[in-house]
Amino acid sequence: MNRILNSINTPDDLKGLSGNELKQLAAELRQYIIDVLASHPGHLASSLGTVELTIALHYVFNTPDDKLIWDVGHQAYPHKILTGRRDRFPTIRTYGGLSGFPRRDESPYDAFGTGHSSTSISAALGMATASTLQGNTARQHIAVIGDGALTGGEAFEGLNNMGVSRANMLVVLNDNGISIDEAVGGLSKYLTKITSSPKYNKLKETVWSRLGGDEQTTSAKRRSVNMLQRLTFVAKTAALGAPNLFESLGIRYFGPIDGHDIDKLVEVLGKLKNLKGPKLLHVVTKKGKGLTSAEQNPVVYHAPGLYDAETGEQIKHPQPGTPLKYQDVFGRTIVELAEANPRIVGITPAMPTGCSLTYMMHKMPARAFDVGIAEQHAVTFAAGLAAQGMLPFCNIYSSFMQRAYDQVIHDVALQHLPVVLCLDRAGLVGDDGPTHHGAFDLACLRSVPGLTICAPMDEHELRNMMYTAQLPDQGPVVIRYPRGLSVHPDWQSPFEQLEVGRGRCVREGKDVAIISIGHIGNEALRAAEMLEAEGISAAVYDMRYLKPIDTGLLDAVASLQFRRMITLEDGVRIGGLGSAVLEYFASKGCVVPVTVLGLPDSFVTHGSVPQLRHDCNIDAEAIVGAAKA
Amino acid sequence: MNRILNSINTPDDLKGLSGNELKQLAAELRQYIIDVLASHPGHLASSLGTVELTIALHYVFNTPDDKLIWDVGHQAYPHKILTGRRDRFPTIRTYGGLSGFPRRDESPYDAFGTGHSSTSISAALGMATASTLQGNTARQHIAVIGDGALTGGEAFEGLNNMGVSRANMLVVLNDNGISIDEAVGGLSKYLTKITSSPKYNKLKETVWSRLGGDEQTTSAKRRSVNMLQRLTFVAKTAALGAPNLFESLGIRYFGPIDGHDIDKLVEVLGKLKNLKGPKLLHVVTKKGKGLTSAEQNPVVYHAPGLYDAETGEQIKHPQPGTPLKYQDVFGRTIVELAEANPRIVGITPAMPTGCSLTYMMHKMPARAFDVGIAEQHAVTFAAGLAAQGMLPFCNIYSSFMQRAYDQVIHDVALQHLPVVLCLDRAGLVGDDGPTHHGAFDLACLRSVPGLTICAPMDEHELRNMMYTAQLPDQGPVVIRYPRGLSVHPDWQSPFEQLEVGRGRCVREGKDVAIISIGHIGNEALRAAEMLEAEGISAAVYDMRYLKPIDTGLLDAVASLQFRRMITLEDGVRIGGLGSAVLEYFASKGCVVPVTVLGLPDSFVTHGSVPQLRHDCNIDAEAIVGAAKA
Repeated sequence: MNRILNSINTPDDLKGLSGNELKQLAAELRQYIIDVLASHPGHLASSLGTVELTIALHYVFNTPDDKLIWDVGHQAYPHKILTGRRDRFPTIRTYGGLSGFPRRDESPYDAFGTGHSSTSISAALGMATASTLQGNTARQHIAVIGDGALTGGEAFEGLNNMGVSRANMLVVLNDNGISIDEAVGGLSKYLTKITSSPKYNKLKETVWSRLGGDEQTTSAKRRSVNMLQRLTFVAKTAALGAPNLFESLGIRYFGPIDGHDIDKLVEVLGKLKNLKGPKLLHVVTKKGKGLTSAEQNPVVYHAPGLYDAETGEQIKHPQPGTPLKYQDVFGRTIVELAEANPRIVGITPAMPTGCSLTYMMHKMPARAFDVGIAEQHAVTFAAGLAAQGMLPFCNIYSSFMQRAYDQVIHDVALQHLPVVLCLDRAGLVGDDGPTHHGAFDLACLRSVPGLTICAPMDEHELRNMMYTAQLPDQGPVVIRYPRGLSVHPDWQSPFEQLEVGRGRCVREGKDVAIISIGHIGNEALRAAEMLEAEGISAAVYDMRYLKPIDTGLLDAVASLQFRRMITLEDGVRIGGLGSAVLEYFASKGCVVPVTVLGLPDSFVTHGSVPQLRHDCNIDAEAIVGAAKA
Repeated sequence: MNRILNSINTPDDLKGLSGNELKQLAAELRQYIIDVLASHPGHLASSLGTVELTIALHYVFNTPDDKLIWDVGHQAYPHKILTGRRDRFPTIRTYGGLSGFPRRDESPYDAFGTGHSSTSISAALGMATASTLQGNTARQHIAVIGDGALTGGEAFEGLNNMGVSRANMLVVLNDNGISIDEAVGGLSKYLTKITSSPKYNKLKETVWSRLGGDEQTTSAKRRSVNMLQRLTFVAKTAALGAPNLFESLGIRYFGPIDGHDIDKLVEVLGKLKNLKGPKLLHVVTKKGKGLTSAEQNPVVYHAPGLYDAETGEQIKHPQPGTPLKYQDVFGRTIVELAEANPRIVGITPAMPTGCSLTYMMHKMPARAFDVGIAEQHAVTFAAGLAAQGMLPFCNIYSSFMQRAYDQVIHDVALQHLPVVLCLDRAGLVGDDGPTHHGAFDLACLRSVPGLTICAPMDEHELRNMMYTAQLPDQGPVVIRYPRGLSVHPDWQSPFEQLEVGRGRCVREGKDVAIISIGHIGNEALRAAEMLEAEGISAAVYDMRYLKPIDTGLLDAVASLQFRRMITLEDGVRIGGLGSAVLEYFASKGCVVPVTVLGLPDSFVTHGSVPQLRHDCNIDAEAIVGAAKA
């Protein structure tokens, strides 16, 4: 069992394998991934789709000297396994274990860290340019990017720049018609058209066969290849009736080829290896390949959690009375609100399942928009809708909102347009780690004039914040809430209008005041109980709004002469709630001792949320410690 | 004189004009712009290029009900003049006068505020979608975008989404082969190819002529037009030998047509007006049209300052002994450093003239890169170069860096790569106003772990910060400096290594301490002199580094028992230097009264920098006031 797989400790061990052995390796590798992830949850379907491609890339190229970058990185599990991390693979996404994404500090084979989408072309072009400047004209630089990630604007910026470069660079377009959800947009339709046109493929075959069989493309042959490409190009586009987008940008296009045909992959990559300059290979793969249920439902099996390795069936233990996830509270609440308010529309940049906008997309498809992996566009598109009288709820994961920071400032806040930004996955996200923690939203948005910024302590507050945000004259509103479960078993509370900028006391006390914002306030409550057991009376204030901040409440708290004031947030300590409180007291000339708890000034690793909260000193135990200090 | 122009108070007044009168109007409008801007500096060349296009758009479309969005907005002066702002035009870009960019609060004809590039397609699609949802199928939504702005990733995200929309939307591609500097990249080459191919244009003519002459395209005719387009499409691409990029995204492409042929523009726009759904018209214009020197040198005449209206000659009064601009100190210093350090490369996203990377591009073209309007790509490209051993200086205007916030976090800081981000135009920029003030950089970057952030008080510090940043093991460094002149007549000081994170006392004092960062510290020095005249002794500390902040210096200042401590920065007061100082003192349990001076929590208008500093209470007078309060 795993006879070949277990013999591969570095990609060098691939080089001697025969074609049949490579195929056997693919089977073993795929099964290994299925077996391990069944009990160690991770990103399954993407990685099943890249098994053959990964083997072929490491077989043909000379990694780590040749540079291989995996866009986003969900699909890089086979790569991790083949590059010395096979035995540690079951630790993936656990505290102290392998990261779920490529990381430069994890392996020299991880040429560039990823996590967020659409960066790989830019990074590979940077590396390729460096090699050129260093006089290394042999090294290859490969970016593997999905058709979903290709819709992100940065990928286009990279292609545009690559089209005039002469650096040795290969983009492998891993086209499976899907990102996490179904891929959307003109580009996606276009790729489908290319890959499904038999005429186009036939012409392509002709070109390939004339490329010849030997690996060493001589300069003369290269010239003739170029000419052939130019000649067949006209025919290709004419036959297809659709032009080639990549070639318009000056990038040589090859493919499409079957991304599960390992012989073909090895043959074609071998030829491209010796072709200088920038080029793109279009590879068609099946997300979830090899596990029937994943092939049939790649959205669910993107990250399926626990499942039966044999049948693929998901293993779920629904606990009666478990609170709803925050995302589902959002997804159901927006439908309720939109049914009553015809101005409301919903927008997601490619995360309908992750943020549960799916409810609205099914119920009122004309009013819910998946705009593709395109955070910048999502926010300006929302601003356009708002400028024309609509009330868009634009749902973006907190860390992805960093992509649209300028649009929030320039298009939404400056024009004071009523866009409601719902930032899911705010605070620590756990297993996905530093690229995905929603650490910066509170701090970076607090500086932006005219934004209302709030965070719910539980799902009822989330509902009320959403309700309040869609009332008249609210201007732009940011609502940030975490990944995972909300608090109460009964989520569907009646709507109540909140007073904007007004916090509340959730627990009275006299020794210590804990001032918190958002869901992390539940840790403050837990701390207060623990403190009570030790004879210390702690008050807990839920600020609800970071901006405008409740200065009345802060004055009241200050006047109560607590022995200590502690601010608590699950965002960076620099610039967030703590700073807001300090700034306010300084502006009043009020001199109060305040302890600021929040994420540290360093990137937080991956692991379980409780573990990370502990590391960051923002769990109940840490609050107790601060209160007693 | 200006017989027709003076009769146009709203676009309605255009409707009755004959073709010849429209041409006469174009001549008058162009001359008016040339005459006014000769003595009221503004963005000249872009606006000269859009005179005919603007007239035709307002003639054909029913603005402001039809929505017209000018991407970036430099080219919108003719639009402002024709939409009720003719007489106020000489106030453009002055305090209290017209904005240099479209603004929703300035006119109902300014459908969407712009300033930063590449937002117009997203905004227009948002508006068009809103109209569809509101049942208005007649309204048109027009985005006018330059070929330069089209390289910005957000524009591509918008096109990708537009390609699957059915909303009434027209993108006018204003193709002049130039943004502020020469346009670069694969897209630019591609557009040149389209517009210069006679075969392509001939085929296009055939299509146009068959489109028929009458304005009202009946549904039957529309069908036949569609079919014709489909049929001729194959032929078009075959004849050209280059495919049409826009059509691959599902967008109907028309053109290219001459953007100075007003009859043709009116004819074609009239036809497109009645074509439902998303479409793109490719218009070729000449930047600077009508003023010979501007046509010949559109880069210089983008914003030429004062010039002779008749000859076009620039009027310059060079004062001997005037300090160099900061940007030129950067531009010359990077060449000096790069000559000594072969790892250094320079990167600019489409601002080589504005940031003076031009020096390096001329001197060492292989090592200086203009990557197009593509801030996201610029930063990740830099990270890729750094990952492969190079030392990139990536120069981005402070407010444009907001576009790359995620890349700074995710690609540079998280991987601790030695990228030097030089943020030009930091702080108040003056005439360009709220979209362009570099207000947020200090605050939003301070939260990012692992960045070194500094700001020079004068050009010698800038040189030393650049020198220090390229020494070994510095990690990612941000150097932010303002628009405009530096301080001393002698800029070329010898390099000196700075101690990272170490500030300095630039003036001793005993009553009041002013703690500042960057160039604005010169106001602190001025304030200290004014205070001295009033018998108040003020010390001035130049922190140099915002991060890591000089805690030793802060401890020393605190121990000196000043009557008052004032922090001073030309960035937002929320989250910047002031907050850093407060956070530090809070963390030490040290209770000190601090007054925080900085930009207010509102967007700052346009006007001269001294005027705006005064409004924001960060000039010497305001510091004196705070010191005495």
